[in-house]
Amino acid sequence: MDVDIAFDQDGLVPAVAQDVTTGEVVMLAYASPEAVEQTHETGLAHYYSRSREELWQKGATSGNVQHVEEVRVDCDADALLYLVDQEGGACHTGHESCFYRSVEDVEATETGATTEVTDVGERVFDPDEVYE
Amino acid sequence: MDVDIAFDQDGLVPAVAQDVTTGEVVMLAYASPEAVEQTHETGLAHYYSRSREELWQKGATSGNVQHVEEVRVDCDADALLYLVDQEGGACHTGHESCFYRSVEDVEATETGATTEVTDVGERVFDPDEVYE
Repeated sequence: MDVDIAFDQDGLVPAVAQDVTTGEVVMLAYASPEAVEQTHETGLAHYYSRSREELWQKGATSGNVQHVEEVRVDCDADALLYLVDQEGGACHTGHESCFYRSVEDVEATETGATTEVTDVGERVFDPDEVYE
Repeated sequence: MDVDIAFDQDGLVPAVAQDVTTGEVVMLAYASPEAVEQTHETGLAHYYSRSREELWQKGATSGNVQHVEEVRVDCDADALLYLVDQEGGACHTGHESCFYRSVEDVEATETGATTEVTDVGERVFDPDEVYE
């Protein structure tokens, strides 16, 4: 069956990366059509960097690449799930997962929310050594 | 430590729900400040429905609520992870997870991508019976 991916107004779709070995959700980033294609063709996770405005192979700088075993598309085709074998840690902070902070409390206003968090994730590399 | 959630220009942040029992990523939706607060206060996952333009308690119609054990915030504070105990299936199609389709092939253009998919997920309820 053919499914057209529903990219947003910026031409991107959120892509969640989950480590197939640990089951941990390691990051959420955004993929462009080219990123989805490159991920499929190379077997390495590609995203689109919204800050650098360019195609981005995860781990190109740090070496912490993601070998993609499978890509899933959701019911509305507006989100992707990359099932990956993560080398090193996924997060630029040195943590295994970008989701290393647990929310203890929330204070919301109409336009924002402040959370009180505690660190719960494991640091698996030193970012100062990896990103020189 | 206090962390301000980085809501996007629409005042929303993507929230990934992962079933803590199975480890399965079951859905991706969007949360408003109020949704984050209600999730924390009630222990039930809340989102903001972009199509209905309103706060939405997951499972309010279907009964397939998500009991939230923990909320995580990522390194850039622009994505959330809800660790949930999912009742029934998360997907309105009757599947356990919205990510029930596996991508076999990708054809991309500058502005879009068509994928060839196969169903791999399990259907755990009949949507015609649940959404009358």
